[in-house]
Amino acid sequence: MTIRYLTGITPSGVPHLGNYAGAIRPSVRSQGKADVDNFYFLADLHSLIKSQDPVRTQRSTLEIAATWIACGLDPEQVTFYRQSDIPEIPQLTWLLTVVTGKGLLNRAHAYKAAVDKNLEGGLDPDADITAGLFMYPVLMAADIMLFSAHKVPVGRDQVQHIEMARDMAASFNHIYGQGRTLLVPPEAVIDQNVATLPGLDGRKMSKSYGNTIPLFTPREQLRKLIMGIATDSRAPGEPKETEGSAIFQLYQAFASEQEAQAMRQAFADGIAWAEAKQQLFERIDAEIAPMRAHFDALMADPARIETILRRGAEKARAVATPFLAELRHAVGLRDLRDVPAQAAPAIKAKVELPQIKQYREQDGLFYFKLTNAKGDVLLQSKGYASGREAGAAVRQLKEQGAAALTALAPVLEDADLQAPSLLQALQALVTAHTAE
Amino acid sequence: MTIRYLTGITPSGVPHLGNYAGAIRPSVRSQGKADVDNFYFLADLHSLIKSQDPVRTQRSTLEIAATWIACGLDPEQVTFYRQSDIPEIPQLTWLLTVVTGKGLLNRAHAYKAAVDKNLEGGLDPDADITAGLFMYPVLMAADIMLFSAHKVPVGRDQVQHIEMARDMAASFNHIYGQGRTLLVPPEAVIDQNVATLPGLDGRKMSKSYGNTIPLFTPREQLRKLIMGIATDSRAPGEPKETEGSAIFQLYQAFASEQEAQAMRQAFADGIAWAEAKQQLFERIDAEIAPMRAHFDALMADPARIETILRRGAEKARAVATPFLAELRHAVGLRDLRDVPAQAAPAIKAKVELPQIKQYREQDGLFYFKLTNAKGDVLLQSKGYASGREAGAAVRQLKEQGAAALTALAPVLEDADLQAPSLLQALQALVTAHTAE
Repeated sequence: MTIRYLTGITPSGVPHLGNYAGAIRPSVRSQGKADVDNFYFLADLHSLIKSQDPVRTQRSTLEIAATWIACGLDPEQVTFYRQSDIPEIPQLTWLLTVVTGKGLLNRAHAYKAAVDKNLEGGLDPDADITAGLFMYPVLMAADIMLFSAHKVPVGRDQVQHIEMARDMAASFNHIYGQGRTLLVPPEAVIDQNVATLPGLDGRKMSKSYGNTIPLFTPREQLRKLIMGIATDSRAPGEPKETEGSAIFQLYQAFASEQEAQAMRQAFADGIAWAEAKQQLFERIDAEIAPMRAHFDALMADPARIETILRRGAEKARAVATPFLAELRHAVGLRDLRDVPAQAAPAIKAKVELPQIKQYREQDGLFYFKLTNAKGDVLLQSKGYASGREAGAAVRQLKEQGAAALTALAPVLEDADLQAPSLLQALQALVTAHTAE
Repeated sequence: MTIRYLTGITPSGVPHLGNYAGAIRPSVRSQGKADVDNFYFLADLHSLIKSQDPVRTQRSTLEIAATWIACGLDPEQVTFYRQSDIPEIPQLTWLLTVVTGKGLLNRAHAYKAAVDKNLEGGLDPDADITAGLFMYPVLMAADIMLFSAHKVPVGRDQVQHIEMARDMAASFNHIYGQGRTLLVPPEAVIDQNVATLPGLDGRKMSKSYGNTIPLFTPREQLRKLIMGIATDSRAPGEPKETEGSAIFQLYQAFASEQEAQAMRQAFADGIAWAEAKQQLFERIDAEIAPMRAHFDALMADPARIETILRRGAEKARAVATPFLAELRHAVGLRDLRDVPAQAAPAIKAKVELPQIKQYREQDGLFYFKLTNAKGDVLLQSKGYASGREAGAAVRQLKEQGAAALTALAPVLEDADLQAPSLLQALQALVTAHTAE
């Protein structure tokens, strides 16, 4: 069986070497495995939650698409598309919205973190929180389940969202599946060995630390950035520690095991920092340079990216369009020509049939009672001396329904004469009677 | 200027005479006014919030569509479509979701009423509340604003939703409009004189009272139902009150002023209830009978309704598709070929340029400070005895950025050396320096 993987890529900001080694490279290298079908999408609808700068949204989409293709993502081998090109995604989002408990969304970590921050600041819990942040997990569930993806590679912070998607699948299948699994509950795949690279200051390379090396920075800038990486102050000739050395860790992330071993030896032999950095720079640049050239070429030809993404959307919609049609049918958004033959005259079929019964008790008196289809007593008369009187009251109820209640009140046991269940039963009684 | 009206029709249950006189008839009669462009849609996506019975959803859609057409809605003259046939509606829903404060939705009456009911029952506030109920106002805003409708006829309970749509329009236009009104804020139109009819028991005709007369019930059943309407017990020949008489009110709702006057006279003259009811029945049936025949014919030919609705969707999408394209462009979901020419090399343009300044104070010592683009001081050195020393520190910062902080800490005034603003500024400094 082919396993479908789906990977969302949020187009925000310029990717750096850490993104490349931790996410892009392993993902691209896993392409083309047997029995694996890969879907990748640019999550531009998600990016709108954070970015309200249209020029930036567009540019980011272009840059990230160009980055992944330059890094070797092969649009012929995988399905690579832009989320906003798939109208079925927001359509499915609504179908999931109506089966999702609001309470489930209240418990999302990202939302709760935003609320906690507001509360700490003495603000209204929902201050400055958009419905977009709140509804994010539903959109994400639609992203995944529209394509019946089995596995979704995510970071730990996204595991809860996958659990939520599973909950939504369970509700949807329960309500509409009639025993079938319409929506496939996805599984999170967490890579336990995500490579994290050190940044310029030795801490984890991360935008929030401001210590990143942009992936496709020009060669000369790459060199200068690498030359600026923090080191200890050991002089040339002094043996150096590989343990905890940003230079060594970076080198290792780009080198073969043999090359890493040679560098380990060079450290022990007292290689000068400048020389180690120069080797690191050359090693990284050897891997990056051809991709950088590809990236620059793609950035100079946005039409090519646009074409690739549109072709990807066509491939994705070849899956999404018929599947959404199936889901629409399941929830009742159906072609009217398929209406069941007997449905048209069955307009009134929904009304439960109440019953009115006349009977004599051991006290010798005559009674009647009105019960609903389930047998619950809705009205109970007091005792009449004659069957004829009781019968007249029953006829009056059948002919006039609720309109007869005021006149009959004195001969009825206490009951809520305004109860909707009673009034509906009486109307059904009248309707059935007039149709007799 | 042509005013566009948009009317949503929720397909739930069989329409009754009260719906006809209060909503359908006045709406249909207003068709074809000069300078008015009418949009009507079957709100089947909304109906999913309440109905999870697919067969019923489909049947209801068919019945309600057939009802409105049988009552005279002219699909050639107006735009009549099914909400779920317009994929642009859920797409716009997402674009509105990201600009809508969650707090706004918290204040929706329908949602708050559901919360209050839970609290009264000692339950979790959001127990059994779906995200669908919570997000209803956003979907409704998309329904309206996708078609730039100016006026929306609604009941009082819906006025708040129109206000919310106006709020969403304001946010969207503010964020993305660049001075233009992209989304037209709609206006609620509340008919102050909505005709309400009395039901079988004399109270307002309403499903919740179980006292309704189905609009297209067969002639014989209509007669029997009317015969069962509650009256007082005045005998034939006794003068009767028109005031408070359900028979008279119903008659008036279907009669001309002349006919009503004649009936008023007949009441004064002591018409028998049975005779008055017979006249009422004939009067209503005279109006309803041709529509009932039309309705029955339509119900027997669902394909015709399907065709009408699809043609309506085409007309609606002729408006919706280009408008959504405009909105997508506004938010940044743009064709990549339109990327501004200078954007590609401007990858780093977003970074604010910090400045590092060296200067001598009146104390004769040499200092430097790092400021961000706004002029906030991020780092302040202590005094150096020589300008050369200060200059070396500045160079070190420019070359190594954050990596230099540990070494320089003793000569810096107290500052949070982990502050992201500082780290980002230092990275920008290094990047600018390496690019020099």
